[in-house]
Amino acid sequence: MIVSPFEQAVLGSDAETLVDQLLEIGIALSASQSLEELLHLILTKSRQITASDAGTIFLVQRQTDAAVLEFKAAQNDSVALPEQVQETTIPLTPTSLVGYAALTGKSLNIADVYALEGREVYQFNRSFDEALRYRTCSVLVVPMQNVSGEVIGVLQLINRKRSPHTLLTPETTVSLTQPYSPWEEHIVRSLASQAAVIIERNHLLESIEQLFEGFVTASVQAIEVRDPTTAGHSERVAALTVRLAEITSATSRGVFREVSFSDRQLQEIRYAALLHDFGKVAVPEAILNKQKKMFPEQLEIIRQRFALVRRTLEMETAQAKVNYLLCHPHTVHSPEQACHHCAFLRHLDEELRQQLQILEEYWQLLELANEPQILDQEPLARLQELTQFYYRGTDGELHPLITARELEQLLVRRGNLTQRERRIIEAHVTYTYQFLSRIPWTPHLKDVPLIAYGHHERLNGSGYPRGIGAAEIPLQTQMLAIADIYDALTAKDRPYKKSLPVAAALKILWQEAKEFKINPDLVELFEQQEVFRVLGHQR
Amino acid sequence: MIVSPFEQAVLGSDAETLVDQLLEIGIALSASQSLEELLHLILTKSRQITASDAGTIFLVQRQTDAAVLEFKAAQNDSVALPEQVQETTIPLTPTSLVGYAALTGKSLNIADVYALEGREVYQFNRSFDEALRYRTCSVLVVPMQNVSGEVIGVLQLINRKRSPHTLLTPETTVSLTQPYSPWEEHIVRSLASQAAVIIERNHLLESIEQLFEGFVTASVQAIEVRDPTTAGHSERVAALTVRLAEITSATSRGVFREVSFSDRQLQEIRYAALLHDFGKVAVPEAILNKQKKMFPEQLEIIRQRFALVRRTLEMETAQAKVNYLLCHPHTVHSPEQACHHCAFLRHLDEELRQQLQILEEYWQLLELANEPQILDQEPLARLQELTQFYYRGTDGELHPLITARELEQLLVRRGNLTQRERRIIEAHVTYTYQFLSRIPWTPHLKDVPLIAYGHHERLNGSGYPRGIGAAEIPLQTQMLAIADIYDALTAKDRPYKKSLPVAAALKILWQEAKEFKINPDLVELFEQQEVFRVLGHQR
Repeated sequence: MIVSPFEQAVLGSDAETLVDQLLEIGIALSASQSLEELLHLILTKSRQITASDAGTIFLVQRQTDAAVLEFKAAQNDSVALPEQVQETTIPLTPTSLVGYAALTGKSLNIADVYALEGREVYQFNRSFDEALRYRTCSVLVVPMQNVSGEVIGVLQLINRKRSPHTLLTPETTVSLTQPYSPWEEHIVRSLASQAAVIIERNHLLESIEQLFEGFVTASVQAIEVRDPTTAGHSERVAALTVRLAEITSATSRGVFREVSFSDRQLQEIRYAALLHDFGKVAVPEAILNKQKKMFPEQLEIIRQRFALVRRTLEMETAQAKVNYLLCHPHTVHSPEQACHHCAFLRHLDEELRQQLQILEEYWQLLELANEPQILDQEPLARLQELTQFYYRGTDGELHPLITARELEQLLVRRGNLTQRERRIIEAHVTYTYQFLSRIPWTPHLKDVPLIAYGHHERLNGSGYPRGIGAAEIPLQTQMLAIADIYDALTAKDRPYKKSLPVAAALKILWQEAKEFKINPDLVELFEQQEVFRVLGHQR
Repeated sequence: MIVSPFEQAVLGSDAETLVDQLLEIGIALSASQSLEELLHLILTKSRQITASDAGTIFLVQRQTDAAVLEFKAAQNDSVALPEQVQETTIPLTPTSLVGYAALTGKSLNIADVYALEGREVYQFNRSFDEALRYRTCSVLVVPMQNVSGEVIGVLQLINRKRSPHTLLTPETTVSLTQPYSPWEEHIVRSLASQAAVIIERNHLLESIEQLFEGFVTASVQAIEVRDPTTAGHSERVAALTVRLAEITSATSRGVFREVSFSDRQLQEIRYAALLHDFGKVAVPEAILNKQKKMFPEQLEIIRQRFALVRRTLEMETAQAKVNYLLCHPHTVHSPEQACHHCAFLRHLDEELRQQLQILEEYWQLLELANEPQILDQEPLARLQELTQFYYRGTDGELHPLITARELEQLLVRRGNLTQRERRIIEAHVTYTYQFLSRIPWTPHLKDVPLIAYGHHERLNGSGYPRGIGAAEIPLQTQMLAIADIYDALTAKDRPYKKSLPVAAALKILWQEAKEFKINPDLVELFEQQEVFRVLGHQR
């Protein structure tokens, strides 16, 4: 009987090597960063300690209707494997070797698969051999079982070689290979199960990472539902910011030559960008969605008040006529007859007409002032007149045509928000920071709150809410700020603003950069490297 | 030289046992479910294969100012260990054996720690020995290193015994123990590092689970910020639902004797309960926070309209007087003089007075109808009159005093929402389901969307949005529904409703159960087992 190198090791001289290998495999499997790496490792190592020429791994994929075995990895020392074989699945039935092992949880240790005589439920499928011009002889198929005994995959080792370094041809295979020993079966099965446990753990980790990712996205979408003017904004800003960060990181010359972001830092940047407007959930939607200077209900109240004023003027005129007629008896006469009483009444009518005309002009002025564009100086001065126009209300008191608060709203010089409303909107940044700070971020995501916090700060200190300057604004935040402005300018969904073409948006970014509000070097990279292409924009 | 059982194994006869043990340890470490289990395992197994009498594990804790070594696990065959020793930390300095190993990454293999002659930077601290009446002799201290070589902890094995099963006394220790072999050092160090890799991986998994948990909580808080009437509602409902599920699960008699929820299912229930109102983010806050039948701005518009109608009536009366006086010349006379013209004018004034009084009554009726309580039949009938009251607007057209839409709002019989508004509020359940369905839940959380979806369904089919019946409502959802109702009744923060005492809330739950809206058996458990105590409520 030939003693294999493996058995030699177990039985004596090479014991140290074997034990070392097993320990190393244990650490390497536990430390594997991806499924691909882990499968490659278990295949390489189990082939190494058994001197196998080839090996394959199938994983069980549970689909809605049935489970299948998916071909996940293959290695072969003697022939080159085709690439596309990786995508194959085979039905999970006991008629194949791997299917049998997966369904029964039993190992198969076969000296020569070509000698199978059809008495077993499983059969060897020679089609791969024929396609590759290969001769499979000895085979060891072991299930990969998790701690509950569930089979999550199958490891198949092929052609136990007498000497580890020989290459096989269909003609030499039978003479250069030998069956797997029970010892090898035992150890490989154990390693396969260790791999199974780690695959499951890694899979759980990935699932929870995806779960978190999915919940972040769903929350962002949920929050944007309230504010249709910014739907999709967070995702776009995240895409732009990450792209800008990648480019900055890749730049080997200029001011950014020493800046480098790891994958984990890019992930941190991405979450900060996705969540930068999270605090908007705490801003009343009436203010978030406000489109003119007045809220629609406010304008309706003022419209009613103008009607009331008109009726009041009409009533006062009629009353003046009554008072006049009570003191100045009026004789019925033909329309042609001159009558100074009638002349006086017409005078009252004329006064009313003039007043109503002024009222109508005021209304038009008010509608004009209600638009969010910047007001000229002249209508602005006339707006003040409206507060000087008093009428007598139904309570008998005098009231101004528009109140001081309404005037304040109409006098807003830029945009459509009063100072108070702007402060409320601006508070969303602080809310974002507060919400994000309460979340127990993993160490490599710990700066998510801080990066998001500064996205409305400006390098020259003119931003909000803290008014901090360049030295205190992280580079990641400076990128986020540029992405945020760019998207606000080019987004197609702001009702009160036209979306700008790329060139116009870049021009505005440059203006801001010249005032040292945003980082000019980043704007330069943004333009030169066409970061906006991640949104499908063309220059 | 004495050959240890371990070396015997490696060198020959017992090789199978050793290899088997190493493979088993690999699987067991990978499969460990908690840090405690893993530390216990590595300590037990490494003591076993080295025949060590005792062992301790310290983990490096990085604190804000400095790192320390935290005593995490200890085992000793010969003396009982005190409980509170578990909480100890020691400074991370090279003067202790474990500190030295942690800082240098080197192993220490010492034949007798009492023979250390003070030439080394590290010293053995005898205080534990003295306190426990123990004699530490041979010691093996190995760093637990992750794949980057970073030391995350230290494993210390104490007193390598000549025979695994002897117990040691201070007097026998020196003769019954021996030094650790280089082989043992090598293998233990390797196992310790494998444990380190797995500890880190498990820690990452826990961190991400906490991150997810934290983000769920932050999102729920963020959403509740918009709707102060339900602040804290989600957390309270989650606490109640989980408690009810635990009790149902623990019940061994009655209809629920076969119901049992695993920890994972309880987690699923908890997330469903936390997120059941997530969809409210898509409901406009004006409707969410609506307190009366009219929105405040609507009432203000109607108030202005009433003023306009009043002025219109006054104007029309004055105009009628003018028309009369133009046709009926009126002579100035003393007040005492009877004058049929004046009598007619007074008649017009009297008509106006009556109309204004009606208008005033209508206003009071309207304010009454605006309250959310159930309206009596009589005011309801009079409300209809308001739509029959027309006035001539400034456009010269006739308009009703209140519009059909306003009447519909005022005619709401129960609560303060119109059908349309109620449908929008009710849609939050569908939004919840849609949002949650988009999230890639891990397999054991896959029913979170479904459990949350049915929380307004009722067993008799009278719920919404699907109107499904008992058979289609998961038991978890039936629990959630009861918790939701209970909290809505007892919460202290609904402005338009008083919070009910526990007994009154239970009475309402029983009413609902009698109509077979909610599950009577669950209500019984809820009451008997005082589930509400999780909120600090007393019967």
